[in-house]
Amino acid sequence: MTQDDSTLATRALQLDALVRERAPLVHHITNHVVMNFTANVTLALGAQPVMAHAHEELEEMTGYASALVLNIGTLERSWIDSMLIAGKAASKRGTPIVLDPVGAGATKLRTETARRLLDELEVSVLRGNAGEVLAVAGDAGKTRGVDSLAQATDAVQAAKLLASERKILVAVTGPVDVITDGREVYEVANGHAMFGRVTGTGCAATAAIGCFVGVAGRDERALAVASALAIYGRAGEIAADKSAGPGTFVPALLDALYNVQRAVHASSLRVARKG
Amino acid sequence: MTQDDSTLATRALQLDALVRERAPLVHHITNHVVMNFTANVTLALGAQPVMAHAHEELEEMTGYASALVLNIGTLERSWIDSMLIAGKAASKRGTPIVLDPVGAGATKLRTETARRLLDELEVSVLRGNAGEVLAVAGDAGKTRGVDSLAQATDAVQAAKLLASERKILVAVTGPVDVITDGREVYEVANGHAMFGRVTGTGCAATAAIGCFVGVAGRDERALAVASALAIYGRAGEIAADKSAGPGTFVPALLDALYNVQRAVHASSLRVARKG
Amino acid sequence: MTQDDSTLATRALQLDALVRERAPLVHHITNHVVMNFTANVTLALGAQPVMAHAHEELEEMTGYASALVLNIGTLERSWIDSMLIAGKAASKRGTPIVLDPVGAGATKLRTETARRLLDELEVSVLRGNAGEVLAVAGDAGKTRGVDSLAQATDAVQAAKLLASERKILVAVTGPVDVITDGREVYEVANGHAMFGRVTGTGCAATAAIGCFVGVAGRDERALAVASALAIYGRAGEIAADKSAGPGTFVPALLDALYNVQRAVHASSLRVARKG
Repeated sequence: MTQDDSTLATRALQLDALVRERAPLVHHITNHVVMNFTANVTLALGAQPVMAHAHEELEEMTGYASALVLNIGTLERSWIDSMLIAGKAASKRGTPIVLDPVGAGATKLRTETARRLLDELEVSVLRGNAGEVLAVAGDAGKTRGVDSLAQATDAVQAAKLLASERKILVAVTGPVDVITDGREVYEVANGHAMFGRVTGTGCAATAAIGCFVGVAGRDERALAVASALAIYGRAGEIAADKSAGPGTFVPALLDALYNVQRAVHASSLRVARKG
Repeated sequence: MTQDDSTLATRALQLDALVRERAPLVHHITNHVVMNFTANVTLALGAQPVMAHAHEELEEMTGYASALVLNIGTLERSWIDSMLIAGKAASKRGTPIVLDPVGAGATKLRTETARRLLDELEVSVLRGNAGEVLAVAGDAGKTRGVDSLAQATDAVQAAKLLASERKILVAVTGPVDVITDGREVYEVANGHAMFGRVTGTGCAATAAIGCFVGVAGRDERALAVASALAIYGRAGEIAADKSAGPGTFVPALLDALYNVQRAVHASSLRVARKG
Repeated sequence: MTQDDSTLATRALQLDALVRERAPLVHHITNHVVMNFTANVTLALGAQPVMAHAHEELEEMTGYASALVLNIGTLERSWIDSMLIAGKAASKRGTPIVLDPVGAGATKLRTETARRLLDELEVSVLRGNAGEVLAVAGDAGKTRGVDSLAQATDAVQAAKLLASERKILVAVTGPVDVITDGREVYEVANGHAMFGRVTGTGCAATAAIGCFVGVAGRDERALAVASALAIYGRAGEIAADKSAGPGTFVPALLDALYNVQRAVHASSLRVARKG
């Protein structure tokens, strides 16, 4: 770890403290499978989750939010409309939008919906695995279901291009997470294989990103995304140490996220700036 | 604790035993975020949960139920209709209805839906935090998202008025819970700050109330509500002692609810009648 | 345990290993209450869950799947259509369909929907409790809500008839699970009363069946169903030993399912062929 990287890790913990201090409201329009889990991840980080998808109330609800998290994991037509309505309200207000294109590449509906949300909304961050990012980017990246067999690093080029073209941040998560705005690249090496044996851990990473961009300045947004992924990944490492399988991993992960300021040292955060 | 309060605590435990003995069916039409958790709270207390919202089956399903729990946490039009259909069936049969006005005050849709359900149905109990109760009462109580910054005690006057006007019981939960029919007031001081770091803990308190009013006589309903909140709050205290954060708190809470008859002593229930 | 039964138990563990090796994609269209839990059960067994119900993407998504799990626990009209569309795609491809008729007998909608799915789709396995199976079979079996008071063994005759008429496998779960194709009968005696105090444990048994039939040959399908139930039931026994109530039982169950190859011995699997 270089001097510079140690500064990044320190800043990551400061941003984590800021989330707990400001308790930003994070509005989620997400999939049925993970709602409870991602709400609890949001709360464990000290932010306030709200789930709302009724068209009639979206403009009001999004108006209170510091970030909007959109997740296409269990789509249906009226929920796509919910995402568009809330997303347009957020775009107008400059509220950061974080998009999780769950299963893009697996079905035409998912790939097209992810692209449509990018077309019509001012998305700030796209967070997916390599296959999903490749699919959104238009590459031939194949996603089988909601998991990716491709390596995150293989998707870096696609992510850079996508970020430049769309003027967004792209986070490709995998064994090493890569965050890029098209020029700058951050890498995060925290994490644990057990994340792969629990549903919604990718979606929860996206929720964590929502909490961090809800308090960070626009000029620090790439670092905020990297910070969220480093702290979330580190919490997973701590949880894996304390658990005997994916069942006890989940409560241990939420405890670890809750206890970051007490239990996570900057030296354990493996975040670095590349190029 | 006065002699009278110790009698209340003893009665609370008797009602808890009655729930386990009778295993009332509690029909929930609730929000997507908390369904699994509130079903498990219902089961841990010894009652039987059923979730059903298809319009075609509501009259039949409500017909089996000893209580109906309505929760507006993730509204949409067809679910509001579900609540009205089931609520009218319950009203006709005299089945107690417990309403949780999640986020009332945050959006017009939520405030108006809560009031409409009160207008059109024979609601027995309204359970909300101070901000939600103030919003339903028409006061200027502001709810930011689904949490309230107002103190529960500030909402007591509004709750009394609302209870008198609507002829319902109102439970305002917070550091001290207040239950009132407009004249009588019960206070419950059990609980723990960790409830605030887990999604759906308010909704689960409402579910617990559903279990208790499902077995209590109409003349004892206010005490049944206070009993549910005291036992639920006490279980939270036990769980907080056994857990390291909000993650392990949830399974510990369900265990504590399951073990009430073994592990909760009347002397630990802080329920009192005021005025 | 006879020589033959010990062979069955050994084969059950081999099938479990095969699930972990092949990681079949299991497509679930299931109820809102249990989605997270059944996805995690699927992952703990080493399979890959995907939840998708948008009509537009069902044919594609079902095309990737090794098994389709349909569960009618929280019906609504458009979800019934989802089950029909996905089920027809699976039927055409010969992908095994596992149906969980949650609450059949409780409402006309549920009983009729379960029968309609059996009529219109090539269902491979029906898994329910005694009351649900009796209701689907047309008997006067009464289900109160989603639980059955009838004994599984009482439903064996109805299950045999139903299996013969429909040319399906029927699994009646209870203190002793019975699996039959109308002639052959397997019995599984693993399990624990704590399953009854957690929501979705029946639905999760159905999900486990989906994982096993997703890797087993057609000629071994009855044994695959029995194997899934034996291993799931045994994991519940292990979890009950390690937990203090239904709250800690859930993570312990997922851990036990994850650790089957390390921690479950063939001698603990109580699976037998009868007649």
